[in-house]
Amino acid sequence: MNSDMRILLERVRSGDVSVDDAMMQMKTAPFEDIGYAKVDLHRRVRQGAAEVIYGAGKTPEQILGIVKTMQKNGQGRVLITRMSREAADYVGAQLELDYHEDARVGLVGGIPQATGIGKVVIATGGTSDIPVAEEAALTAESLGSEVVRLYDVGVSGVHRLLSHMDLIMGATVIIAIAGMEGALASVVGGLADCPVIAVPTSVGYGASFGGVSALLSMLNSCASGVSVVNIDNGFGAGYLANMINHMEVPK
Amino acid sequence: MNSDMRILLERVRSGDVSVDDAMMQMKTAPFEDIGYAKVDLHRRVRQGAAEVIYGAGKTPEQILGIVKTMQKNGQGRVLITRMSREAADYVGAQLELDYHEDARVGLVGGIPQATGIGKVVIATGGTSDIPVAEEAALTAESLGSEVVRLYDVGVSGVHRLLSHMDLIMGATVIIAIAGMEGALASVVGGLADCPVIAVPTSVGYGASFGGVSALLSMLNSCASGVSVVNIDNGFGAGYLANMINHMEVPK
Amino acid sequence: MNSDMRILLERVRSGDVSVDDAMMQMKTAPFEDIGYAKVDLHRRVRQGAAEVIYGAGKTPEQILGIVKTMQKNGQGRVLITRMSREAADYVGAQLELDYHEDARVGLVGGIPQATGIGKVVIATGGTSDIPVAEEAALTAESLGSEVVRLYDVGVSGVHRLLSHMDLIMGATVIIAIAGMEGALASVVGGLADCPVIAVPTSVGYGASFGGVSALLSMLNSCASGVSVVNIDNGFGAGYLANMINHMEVPK
Amino acid sequence: MNSDMRILLERVRSGDVSVDDAMMQMKTAPFEDIGYAKVDLHRRVRQGAAEVIYGAGKTPEQILGIVKTMQKNGQGRVLITRMSREAADYVGAQLELDYHEDARVGLVGGIPQATGIGKVVIATGGTSDIPVAEEAALTAESLGSEVVRLYDVGVSGVHRLLSHMDLIMGATVIIAIAGMEGALASVVGGLADCPVIAVPTSVGYGASFGGVSALLSMLNSCASGVSVVNIDNGFGAGYLANMINHMEVPK
Amino acid sequence: MNSDMRILLERVRSGDVSVDDAMMQMKTAPFEDIGYAKVDLHRRVRQGAAEVIYGAGKTPEQILGIVKTMQKNGQGRVLITRMSREAADYVGAQLELDYHEDARVGLVGGIPQATGIGKVVIATGGTSDIPVAEEAALTAESLGSEVVRLYDVGVSGVHRLLSHMDLIMGATVIIAIAGMEGALASVVGGLADCPVIAVPTSVGYGASFGGVSALLSMLNSCASGVSVVNIDNGFGAGYLANMINHMEVPK
Amino acid sequence: MNSDMRILLERVRSGDVSVDDAMMQMKTAPFEDIGYAKVDLHRRVRQGAAEVIYGAGKTPEQILGIVKTMQKNGQGRVLITRMSREAADYVGAQLELDYHEDARVGLVGGIPQATGIGKVVIATGGTSDIPVAEEAALTAESLGSEVVRLYDVGVSGVHRLLSHMDLIMGATVIIAIAGMEGALASVVGGLADCPVIAVPTSVGYGASFGGVSALLSMLNSCASGVSVVNIDNGFGAGYLANMINHMEVPK
Amino acid sequence: MNSDMRILLERVRSGDVSVDDAMMQMKTAPFEDIGYAKVDLHRRVRQGAAEVIYGAGKTPEQILGIVKTMQKNGQGRVLITRMSREAADYVGAQLELDYHEDARVGLVGGIPQATGIGKVVIATGGTSDIPVAEEAALTAESLGSEVVRLYDVGVSGVHRLLSHMDLIMGATVIIAIAGMEGALASVVGGLADCPVIAVPTSVGYGASFGGVSALLSMLNSCASGVSVVNIDNGFGAGYLANMINHMEVPK
Amino acid sequence: MNSDMRILLERVRSGDVSVDDAMMQMKTAPFEDIGYAKVDLHRRVRQGAAEVIYGAGKTPEQILGIVKTMQKNGQGRVLITRMSREAADYVGAQLELDYHEDARVGLVGGIPQATGIGKVVIATGGTSDIPVAEEAALTAESLGSEVVRLYDVGVSGVHRLLSHMDLIMGATVIIAIAGMEGALASVVGGLADCPVIAVPTSVGYGASFGGVSALLSMLNSCASGVSVVNIDNGFGAGYLANMINHMEVPK
Repeated sequence: MNSDMRILLERVRSGDVSVDDAMMQMKTAPFEDIGYAKVDLHRRVRQGAAEVIYGAGKTPEQILGIVKTMQKNGQGRVLITRMSREAADYVGAQLELDYHEDARVGLVGGIPQATGIGKVVIATGGTSDIPVAEEAALTAESLGSEVVRLYDVGVSGVHRLLSHMDLIMGATVIIAIAGMEGALASVVGGLADCPVIAVPTSVGYGASFGGVSALLSMLNSCASGVSVVNIDNGFGAGYLANMINHMEVPK
Repeated sequence: MNSDMRILLERVRSGDVSVDDAMMQMKTAPFEDIGYAKVDLHRRVRQGAAEVIYGAGKTPEQILGIVKTMQKNGQGRVLITRMSREAADYVGAQLELDYHEDARVGLVGGIPQATGIGKVVIATGGTSDIPVAEEAALTAESLGSEVVRLYDVGVSGVHRLLSHMDLIMGATVIIAIAGMEGALASVVGGLADCPVIAVPTSVGYGASFGGVSALLSMLNSCASGVSVVNIDNGFGAGYLANMINHMEVPK
Repeated sequence: MNSDMRILLERVRSGDVSVDDAMMQMKTAPFEDIGYAKVDLHRRVRQGAAEVIYGAGKTPEQILGIVKTMQKNGQGRVLITRMSREAADYVGAQLELDYHEDARVGLVGGIPQATGIGKVVIATGGTSDIPVAEEAALTAESLGSEVVRLYDVGVSGVHRLLSHMDLIMGATVIIAIAGMEGALASVVGGLADCPVIAVPTSVGYGASFGGVSALLSMLNSCASGVSVVNIDNGFGAGYLANMINHMEVPK
Repeated sequence: MNSDMRILLERVRSGDVSVDDAMMQMKTAPFEDIGYAKVDLHRRVRQGAAEVIYGAGKTPEQILGIVKTMQKNGQGRVLITRMSREAADYVGAQLELDYHEDARVGLVGGIPQATGIGKVVIATGGTSDIPVAEEAALTAESLGSEVVRLYDVGVSGVHRLLSHMDLIMGATVIIAIAGMEGALASVVGGLADCPVIAVPTSVGYGASFGGVSALLSMLNSCASGVSVVNIDNGFGAGYLANMINHMEVPK
Repeated sequence: MNSDMRILLERVRSGDVSVDDAMMQMKTAPFEDIGYAKVDLHRRVRQGAAEVIYGAGKTPEQILGIVKTMQKNGQGRVLITRMSREAADYVGAQLELDYHEDARVGLVGGIPQATGIGKVVIATGGTSDIPVAEEAALTAESLGSEVVRLYDVGVSGVHRLLSHMDLIMGATVIIAIAGMEGALASVVGGLADCPVIAVPTSVGYGASFGGVSALLSMLNSCASGVSVVNIDNGFGAGYLANMINHMEVPK
Repeated sequence: MNSDMRILLERVRSGDVSVDDAMMQMKTAPFEDIGYAKVDLHRRVRQGAAEVIYGAGKTPEQILGIVKTMQKNGQGRVLITRMSREAADYVGAQLELDYHEDARVGLVGGIPQATGIGKVVIATGGTSDIPVAEEAALTAESLGSEVVRLYDVGVSGVHRLLSHMDLIMGATVIIAIAGMEGALASVVGGLADCPVIAVPTSVGYGASFGGVSALLSMLNSCASGVSVVNIDNGFGAGYLANMINHMEVPK
Repeated sequence: MNSDMRILLERVRSGDVSVDDAMMQMKTAPFEDIGYAKVDLHRRVRQGAAEVIYGAGKTPEQILGIVKTMQKNGQGRVLITRMSREAADYVGAQLELDYHEDARVGLVGGIPQATGIGKVVIATGGTSDIPVAEEAALTAESLGSEVVRLYDVGVSGVHRLLSHMDLIMGATVIIAIAGMEGALASVVGGLADCPVIAVPTSVGYGASFGGVSALLSMLNSCASGVSVVNIDNGFGAGYLANMINHMEVPK
Repeated sequence: MNSDMRILLERVRSGDVSVDDAMMQMKTAPFEDIGYAKVDLHRRVRQGAAEVIYGAGKTPEQILGIVKTMQKNGQGRVLITRMSREAADYVGAQLELDYHEDARVGLVGGIPQATGIGKVVIATGGTSDIPVAEEAALTAESLGSEVVRLYDVGVSGVHRLLSHMDLIMGATVIIAIAGMEGALASVVGGLADCPVIAVPTSVGYGASFGGVSALLSMLNSCASGVSVVNIDNGFGAGYLANMINHMEVPK
């Protein structure tokens, strides 16, 4: 149990804080005071890594406001996902913003120096999957991972993937992104020896059903070590990949 | 227009057949008499190839009766699909039957000498897909095709498939059979240079949804030359593969 | 095994190429050098037939660039599918392009002389299915097949189809295209004696569910010799039909 | 407005019934007394036609009890649908019952003399659809319609249907019953000039999804005059067909 | 068999027509000549009733062309469904057109005198269902039926429906149109004693899933005499209702 | 039974009303006269509470007309849901209207003094759910309930919810509104001791399927006391919550 | 905040409990000690009402053990839902158990005296829905509500429901239970003036899809005051109905 | 590139191997010889960890045979998943097998000493999820991970989970397993600071749709760091968790 709670209890003991005041503090901020929930409020963030704002459904003004608050609190790097061109123009007019339109990602404060166990390899089945891939890549990079992009290596031309076996074998985590039949995750999962995060995309037409076909395909992957995130959820994959890439390996 | 019709008309002209009788003949058997539908009743069958009985929903007695009628009409080879063990026992007690329990296929009159352009390669993702594959294989063989079996070459271990590239490249038609993620069709379709018939199977659990996941995956295949048949429809794939394998190439 | 690989090995033997250099060549271009994958990179293309560009998700500039590269490499005929009006205008301003707006298909270099076993018959259930049918027709034609169009012969007026029995019976491959109830594939499959490629279309309303109803209907076809491609996938059907129409008997 | 209500009001007027008693009678049996709902309780039944019991979820004892009550009330003919073999044995031991096991239909009092405008033609796509067809046929017959059975005329061999054009053209109502691709309804609807009631069946496997494929196909029928009932609902189709077959011109 | 065929045969007999010519005539127009398919080409149309054009996917020019052709052939009344405002303006500029924008229906030649057994009652659950109802009503009226409109009588206020019991009881056919929960068909089906045609509408939001909820509800109706057409298919319901309303009752 | 009916019967008895007239009155207005359906026409409305207009599919003119009619009949407060900006401008130009654009709710006559047992707590998972929440809140408030808003307390940061346990524990009814995984209802249901009305929202992307994921999640809630309304149905939840909040406890 | 927490803090102040011990107590039982979560552990239970055991997936021995523990702790009444015949026999051999086989509900300690605001009316569409209704009824009764059963009043014969308008109008809460088209909830919701809890049942066949049709219908109900629980979830409805029936008005 | 390939090339150079023989070796075993695919055949396995056999669809004899082959090759530990009681009896009769019937898992050679970064915490929503959880737990343990079981901590009683915050916070990887609403993954994902692998289970009834509800809920999780595997795929989760728990920093 953390020191805040201990301090409060000791102040109760010493009489500095009345029982009623102590109870009020607990009631109004139960987790801050009790300690174990503090992590909910203040997620442990590696030195220099970005904080994240989910831009969808937020006005340009709201996004700017949140970024400024973060900056005031010493958070120099901010990643904004699902950010519209309009919001980027608004925010970019007020502070330095690196906006990636295809990925709909905005970055404040640049990309930090990469840390972590190794490399996050991001593979896509086609070129249409690249916006989702870039969301994943920029997320992982802004959080402190080195990213290797391996685009357009879909399984209908499996030699494209095989000619990069060294990248596949050398990866720490792989993000496999594909729409349509979504088979990339299985093939990569079978070749690689590390966790594979599969991202179905809504790319396609007809029976791709907005990504459902790829989603089901990935969930049914026979390869071990494969797990799946939501359709088009590049951010989620990049976040998880970075988290795995920063597992604290005991020496 | 065929000769039956011509003969009838000529007999009308000569007065051998009255107008009323001619009209009655046309009415009662419009296609047999008129000619162009005759193919509906008497599909062109290559010398020696088997006729097919769909055994599901037929009693053992009915199946036996149909086989005997065929034999009386000079059809020595009969393929019975979706045939139960019980029906096989009943029929096998009366005439020589070669029953394949896993594929639920019965064969009367044996496998004919293979003809056709080349080889039908049948590949499966796993061992659980083999019953469907055998239904396809026995169908194609009984209709007169040479079949090469390439089982358990699923994409989660793509080297298994690649180590048989010679078979893939040398095939005339390929039947790709897989459940779960069904990605085999895409990978094979990308490697091969011939028609690929994809058969999703109901093998799997959870989000495989009885073959729907594999079906969708195959329909979304980015590889060219791939088409799909119904879930577990080994017969349909074998029949179509044999048909393509017997395309009459003009000299 | 192809001659490139043989030449490399012989140069290793003769000492012209060092072991290390040979290994590097294999590593960097594993399939080109080893041979069996060359077909992946350079699909066997019949004399004069078109190469294909999938236009969806590509900018007009990208499409033009690819076409020019192909032309430089001696590929005179190019088929561009899912090509927007805008892209057609851009490309057409720079080189001679034959654009079919309803099918969203662009052709460079014109249609080659038809080769192949026979005719590809393309039937549609209604007039709304024609854009998909034209995508199929232009694909097959640009790859070197003779195409016969048989439009608006839906099963709710089956006499329209029956009055063209000679076309059905004379076809080498049939492409059956229909939305709504999608029954055309079954009726055609029952009448014809050749492979039938069924294409569900997203035409319709209500319970047609964007082509799902037609797709299911076609997958459940009781007629033999029928297989299915993705909803609205005219290209896939045309490609496969042409492939079957060019089956070659090995010498 | 019917006479019961009039009689009650007149008895109120004459003082034979008090206002309170009249109100109580209305309250306890509001529709019997008021008249317009009487049809709810006592549907107009043609002379001699059968009453119907839905046997599913009823015990053999309950079914017998209901039949006996009907008989006491002068209803000599009773149709029991979805009746198990077990229930049939139990009821059949106590009174004369004609049980059709494949249709799971029991008949008490036999089939009445057929009345109505003309004939109800019942067509099925395959032999597996016959149980549903028999439920429809026996329902229509027991309610007083002449039924013509036209089984196994599926669209994958459309000549089978065409060779019975006279039946199709001469029908008053047609019930089209089919599983799998369910295209029979469209073809029949296109050929016929009378109402067509389509019944999807749960026959099939794989992507037939227990009748959903046939259901969607039938709902999407492009033929005019086609409507659809629930999957396997032979009774509903037979009931409606008989109702249309007994349309009465008001005097 | 009809007289055209007889005449042809007699001319063959008399020598006026050669056997070859007779065969050619049969081949080129197999059904016109043979007779039984003539009804496919020339549906029996009651005196004065409208012919129908399905306007969706047709250009204004095409619609005008078809109407003019019909008029030239003596068809004075034409019903155009799914007709856009734009098409109506174009056609209306050239000939007299009565356009109903909410129903997207255009009428040429006005509504004929009503004939038929009795009245077609069209009931809707809400006011949003009225466009579909009007498509049904105008269809039935233009084909020669008297229509009674009973709108906004949804089951969540069942008294609205009950207060019109006389209309329900006096109907010859009822069309029940509803979105959302679609329960109107069941309630009407339980009250009425005539065929009920249920039309689900795509009205609603959330779990109405574009009419699927209403469709399923209607297919599951426990009331006898209810059948269902496609979502929003007002035309289909109006056509079928009119057909039932014109059953030819033998005297 | 109510007095209207008694009066009618007594007038029949006294001869003031003839039997025929009495029958006509019952027929033409069965429920108004008979009494028990009167509540259908005139729902009991608490003093001062608002009447509701469902604005979707109504023109601005229609909405204004209905409001004016209500006002003429003494209904001072009116709640208009699913009201477009355009309709609000039109109505607001003619009478005093309080329009809430995010909730698409218009209020005429203001919010009444809150009555009821206690408080309706409205919790949302995220900020994007607020429009639905505001529809619920304004509905409950306009009907006479006190509402407490507790927004953005989604389960992926459960401490946000727990820090408001006093509100959860003190609620009379809780409305839990969430999209995406919809887990808020279960967590709130487990913490609270009062009825919880769950509202899935269409907020989200990919596998949220327009609210289906949240809907299913809420229907499967393991917490007792939870029930569900349609996706995005804020009005339904607010109406029901207010109804429960006004349960009339007998003295 | 509750007294346990206060006492602990005061004992810290007085020195009776060390800071470390206090922290340990909080850590090991954070909610019991802190107070606000106590309700999670010890739900407020009205005097005499039953505790509930969800029997599915529990062995007879486990169920017996839980019941005995409850009894030891002074809980005389226990309701066991989803209890198999086998479990009932086992438990019933050891203590007095009232087992209702159709509802799969076991009761220990009998039904308590009914309390609450008024009556819970439970209506079903058909007789097959009765097991679910009985689960709801026994749940509400064992928790202390008076229940009125109104079975087999489905909307396809709406007079059955209308003849019980007094029950509908006099209810405090209504549970509407129906399979197939599930329209009962809407009709009841339109007639009643109290909360209606809708329970879809898995009764039916074909397009009822195991209760999905009824579920969707109920979610789309246009009647106000209706909410829905999971398919076949009689317990959930009974629990919620009882909760509403025991709303406590603050003094 | 590995030494096998180098040796081959050097033997070509030295003339020990002819060019033809070298080409044949490459062709027949392309990946073994070329090197980069060797990892496909021989996955790196940590010292002492188990090899895995997927038991579904394999006969007891086949399983025994595979185990014996593994043992001969020095693989002392084998994990068999989806193993039937019957297979366990057969295999257990021949060699020492530790069989867990609820998880359908068999272990040969016992559990190895745990290695890895830290602990794998496995949490379930209910007791019915335990079989899937045990499959995950035994998988992770047999591969060399320490596992902490935290069962029955579903979100409808969130205090149960919160009282184990120390376990959640101290985990290296968490596997969150739940059926029904599947919200556990989100709550755990929000509380934890490590990768969370979500496993939906097919536990539940009604709208749980065999795990689909939980699956969707988990895919839509708003918490970062959560990914999902197939329904009931305990093995997949355990395998991936162990893989993450053994992340290795490259030297």
